Formats: sequence, C-alpha cells, structure tokens
Amino acid sequence: MSLKPISAVNSMSYEDFISIFGNVIEHCSLCAAAVWRDRPFSDVNSLHKSFCQFADQLPIGGKEGILRLHPDLAGRLAMSGGLTNESTKEQQSAGLNTLTDQEKQNMHDLNQQYKQKFGFPFVICARENKKEAILTGLERRLNNSGETEAVTGVEEVKKICRLRLLDIVDSSSKL
Amino acid sequence: MSLKPISAVNSMSYEDFISIFGNVIEHCSLCAAAVWRDRPFSDVNSLHKSFCQFADQLPIGGKEGILRLHPDLAGRLAMSGGLTNESTKEQQSAGLNTLTDQEKQNMHDLNQQYKQKFGFPFVICARENKKEAILTGLERRLNNSGETEAVTGVEEVKKICRLRLLDIVDSSSKL
Repeated sequence: MSLKPISAVNSMSYEDFISIFGNVIEHCSLCAAAVWRDRPFSDVNSLHKSFCQFADQLPIGGKEGILRLHPDLAGRLAMSGGLTNESTKEQQSAGLNTLTDQEKQNMHDLNQQYKQKFGFPFVICARENKKEAILTGLERRLNNSGETEAVTGVEEVKKICRLRLLDIVDSSSKL
Repeated sequence: MSLKPISAVNSMSYEDFISIFGNVIEHCSLCAAAVWRDRPFSDVNSLHKSFCQFADQLPIGGKEGILRLHPDLAGRLAMSGGLTNESTKEQQSAGLNTLTDQEKQNMHDLNQQYKQKFGFPFVICARENKKEAILTGLERRLNNSGETEAVTGVEEVKKICRLRLLDIVDSSSKL
C-alpha cells in the first residue's frame, strides 16, 4: 500500500477515515471516529497529536479500557493466529514468535500476574523492544501502582499508534 | 440466549465482558472495556448508568465519534445486509425494511443533508419509533445546532443501549 499524502487524509469522509485509521489504536475505532473532527491535519505529527490528546482526555476507566482492548503479548490469540495484522507484525518484530518453551511459560505467568493485579493486560511497543527487554519490563512494571501502569500503558499505546500512522501516511507530506 | 443474572455479569473476566457487552453501544467496545471497572453492578440499571456516565464524560469529539460509528438508517449497509444483528432487528422493528421507494429516497436525501451539515449520522432509537416518526424527527432535527444534535444523538444511543442491555441481563436480578 503506498503512503498517503496528508491532503488525501484531510479530504476523507468519516467512513473512510474510520475504516483506514480505526485500528491505529488497537480495536478502538472510537478514537479515529473522534479524531476526524480535528481535520485538517497539517502533517502526520498533528494527526498523531490528535490521537494522543483524545487518549489523554479519557477518564481513568477509558484509559484502562484502551489497554483492555489489547491482546496479551505472546498469548492465546498469538498462538492461534487470531491477532490483528498489525499486532502480528509487531509481535514478530520483537521476536515474540521465537520464544523458547521456558520463555513462553515465563511470559504467560507474568502476564497472568499482571492482569490479576491491574485488571488490564501489559502493553508495550513491541517494535521498539526485543523479547528480553519485554520480559524484563513486564517483571519490573508489575511493582508499579495501577494508576502508574494505566498511564504507562497508554504512553506505549501512543508509540504503537505513531508507528502504525507512519505505515499509512507519508511523513514528508505537509499541508 | 437466556438472560443473565447480575451476579454472572459481575463475575466475568474483562475479556468475556467486552465480548458480551461490546456492542451495546454500536461498534464501540471501548465503552464496555471502560465500564468493566465499575463492577460490581447492583442491577441492570446500575450497569446502564455506568455506560451513560462514560458517554457523558467524553469530550464533544468523543460524543460525535460514538455517533459516527452508527450506520445510516435504511442506508447502504441495511440494503446490503451488512448491519450488526442488533441494528438489523432494530431497524426492522421500526418498519424501515418496508419503506416505499419514495420513502427510501426521502430518507436517503435527508440523511445526506444531515451528515453534510453535522459530520455524523442521524441516530434515533428505532425500537421506540415507527418509520413515520423517524422521518419527521430527521426533518425537524436538521434545524438544530451541531452541539444540540451531538447531545441529542447520544441520548438516543443511551436508549438503544438500555434496550440492548435488557436483551442480555435479567432486569429482575439484584445484587
């Protein structure tokens, strides 16, 4: 798919915009549906900023909700091929498809502890981390408070969102 | 599907909760993902109240976003069988599947005018209205301001949400 210039983004109907950007925040098409209001965007950075602002304005339940729409890393969905295309690529780029049995078990146990403690899954930008860093981060972040983790998780969602936007929009294109 | 007691709702994992309540607000699983935080719910009314509060707390872009995730009434998706099961039943109950050609054209033209003016589709609780009332309402609401319509539309979404919840949860069940 060729990268879109920002002018093409700005002239989309809300239906097309939601269909194209509806998963830049995983399974959360409400974000794209809300952000369409902020057109025209001057470039991909201003588009990303709108997504970030929407996430930041959500009450704590909404921030946690964004995280709850994310799959477990190297979890059941990844094993069964049920991830979105974006998540599949991202988890592969971190090497999560090459975990040893011991690493799989370790990841599974830590994920379960994390969800048990916080009521949402561990989210990290997999394209910016390798599997070792992810396992270490998961272990470390388990010690945080729920509020810290909701905010930390959403900061990771914003990084994921940025990389997904750069897969769609030409970053050199300006209004 | 038999109606669920509130105790069953309160003991659901967030994954199950999102899978079961993810469409009580059309295509907006973030609402269910956020609302799970508010359990335990004392009954279906308190569950409904949580959904309403989440919608009310959204900034104006988020309220409009909820509306943008709704299909056009008697629109292209309805004609092609592409609606969610819930929307199909609701639009049928209003008689929108029995429009004459003239009524279809009229509905289409008014919907287009409405979307052109407001940047989101006309939303009304179809189970509480018949096709004549829907056409009249659409014509009347076209005169409102965008802000009034965003709020009016979300009030209709709350009515739709309530009826969808009552299709899932036993309303006589209390904590």
